[in-house]
Amino acid sequence: MISFEEAHSKVLESTISFDTESVLFTNSLGRVLAEDILADRDFPPFDRVTKDGIVVNYEAIKNGKTEFSIEGVVAAGTPKSKLKDRNNCLEIMTGAVMPENADTVIMYEDITIKEGKAILNSSVKAFQNIHKQGVDTQKGAILVKKNTRITAAEIGILAAVGSVEVEVKKLPQVTLISTGDELVAVHEKPAAHQIRNSNMLSLHALLLDEHIHSKHIHLNDNKEEIKNNLIELFSNSDILMLSGGVSKGKFDYIPEVLEDLGVEKVFHRVKQRPGKPFWFGIHKASKTVIFSFPGNPVSTFANYHVYFKDWLHKSLGLEMIKNTIILGEEVSNKTDLTLFISVKVKDLNGEKRAFRAKENGSGDLTSLALTDGFIQLPPREKPYKKGETVTFIASR
Amino acid sequence: MISFEEAHSKVLESTISFDTESVLFTNSLGRVLAEDILADRDFPPFDRVTKDGIVVNYEAIKNGKTEFSIEGVVAAGTPKSKLKDRNNCLEIMTGAVMPENADTVIMYEDITIKEGKAILNSSVKAFQNIHKQGVDTQKGAILVKKNTRITAAEIGILAAVGSVEVEVKKLPQVTLISTGDELVAVHEKPAAHQIRNSNMLSLHALLLDEHIHSKHIHLNDNKEEIKNNLIELFSNSDILMLSGGVSKGKFDYIPEVLEDLGVEKVFHRVKQRPGKPFWFGIHKASKTVIFSFPGNPVSTFANYHVYFKDWLHKSLGLEMIKNTIILGEEVSNKTDLTLFISVKVKDLNGEKRAFRAKENGSGDLTSLALTDGFIQLPPREKPYKKGETVTFIASR
Repeated sequence: MISFEEAHSKVLESTISFDTESVLFTNSLGRVLAEDILADRDFPPFDRVTKDGIVVNYEAIKNGKTEFSIEGVVAAGTPKSKLKDRNNCLEIMTGAVMPENADTVIMYEDITIKEGKAILNSSVKAFQNIHKQGVDTQKGAILVKKNTRITAAEIGILAAVGSVEVEVKKLPQVTLISTGDELVAVHEKPAAHQIRNSNMLSLHALLLDEHIHSKHIHLNDNKEEIKNNLIELFSNSDILMLSGGVSKGKFDYIPEVLEDLGVEKVFHRVKQRPGKPFWFGIHKASKTVIFSFPGNPVSTFANYHVYFKDWLHKSLGLEMIKNTIILGEEVSNKTDLTLFISVKVKDLNGEKRAFRAKENGSGDLTSLALTDGFIQLPPREKPYKKGETVTFIASR
Repeated sequence: MISFEEAHSKVLESTISFDTESVLFTNSLGRVLAEDILADRDFPPFDRVTKDGIVVNYEAIKNGKTEFSIEGVVAAGTPKSKLKDRNNCLEIMTGAVMPENADTVIMYEDITIKEGKAILNSSVKAFQNIHKQGVDTQKGAILVKKNTRITAAEIGILAAVGSVEVEVKKLPQVTLISTGDELVAVHEKPAAHQIRNSNMLSLHALLLDEHIHSKHIHLNDNKEEIKNNLIELFSNSDILMLSGGVSKGKFDYIPEVLEDLGVEKVFHRVKQRPGKPFWFGIHKASKTVIFSFPGNPVSTFANYHVYFKDWLHKSLGLEMIKNTIILGEEVSNKTDLTLFISVKVKDLNGEKRAFRAKENGSGDLTSLALTDGFIQLPPREKPYKKGETVTFIASR
């Protein structure tokens, strides 16, 4: 049995580099950029008026002028206009282009308009209320870097620069495989000795959060059936994610069959709880990566977050941020295992603190609804004290 | 002009109570439960074996027995079996039902099997390795409460209890309306005085994060066109979300047209920055709620988060959690406005701290890509000190 640190490193050494594909930017939310997004023009693209009011030439004001004849009205969306006489003004609207011969905007609140003239009511700063061309960003500058996850803010930027098609990382083909003859489908009524197959549905939903639409197949505890199905799945899946069938049971055929089929076992069993019987391997011929999680709901849920999410994010080129949190209470780990303990995060006047959630062991699916994530505690003689910083794995 | 606090209260007083609808649980990710989810049976539903190994009657061990004849093998998924002789054992697998006459499981690691007998290698605790029926949850207990947002953990629970169809809150019909003659579509090449219409795309993406698929319409700065379109939109939209056309400009017809059409203005202009010219109202006849945001990208983005998200979450019945953060540096607000300042959140050994992001004012779309949210600073003579707790509005 290897340590958690070793297992985690081995998983991250097995990342693959996803190809890229071009998608419509309107379909790119949540995807990872495979190209830098550049400014196609200066931002703002012109000296942009930022208030509704009048525009003047500041020289006139410097020379003592406080009344301006209005030459006309300039709306946003009209080509660059011109102030004919530098002692006059133009009415102008937010978003309009600064006219030739003008340089300073005075908002309606600070003037009085009377008989075709605008009269100043307050002092004016030179060049005020202008968003100068290129001050935000110059043409050609990188606005969003490659390997960024696209959120609503990035969608706005893609729209602003006209990136109608955008190059993103492909997402892997994931097949979920459930095993265990005690499982029945969700819509079925289980007999007294059976339970519904819930793990796969959780995994499916977790993958949807990563914008991955996974397939699902259930295999009975039958060696031949498992074998025949796996052969086919290697050819059309980048990832197989299994749940159950990896313990020491008589009918836990998975590890044996995988190895029979030429899958290289990277490791099996990790000094951790929950999630100890985790089996990880690679089918070299097809390059399929196999995450074979234990069958308990909490074990599968924890291992997905601890291993798969990191593996996926590294494969996608996302920045790997180690998240930490401060303990709100003392927690011990005198075992020789790395523990992943379900916690609730409370906000104590701006300080986030982790508190143990009620939990009944790795079979307790119901407890996952009440938790915010897991704290990761390596084995240690001394307890982890209240106020100590530990690694945190968010689960919602 | 009203204060931010007053405006925010008025928006929250205008929440509506959404109807409910039944959806397949596999389509319920991200939706809000409109019913409590109950345990349809005990969890676990039977005394469940949690290790692969043998099962015995502890009485035999208490009486000094260390060797057990193996009567047979019990797989998970088979109906409840029976240990015929209480001095014997059964091999048994994880997930199986505890057989009659047996009560204690010893895992393979702690026994040796030889010639049809299992020999103990280590001490045994009475009733070990059993997940007792009902210890997690008893039949009829509430597993997930009404008004909970459904995440992957809840999907697993819905699956476990067989909630194939689930009652959730309906989502509102949102129509996004852009205005401004300077705007061109994203796929078009803007002339020197034009810009692409990016705000609507950001809003559309933000709404997708709430699982709302919004419609979008662009209206030219033409009073009649605006009027005719709005009349139709009242009848088929729960929410109109506008961007632009609410300043003091000559062509900012929106407020006037809305009032002409019988929309009750709740307020217009708020003592805040960005987002000052925010217009909010209700069309009583159709009950349509109108969020009319200023046209600048950062203003729209901030107001969406500050007003609309809270409005939506309250309307959905979600718990309203006031998020806070600690300042990583001193920030002042000697204006008479509530400021929403873009920040980056840094993790300093478990402590989250907010630092101002580089920003060039409310027109600076590009800066949104580099920020994690906004801190909310009411006007105050004294600066907000490093280490002080302030309200935080996450934006990604």
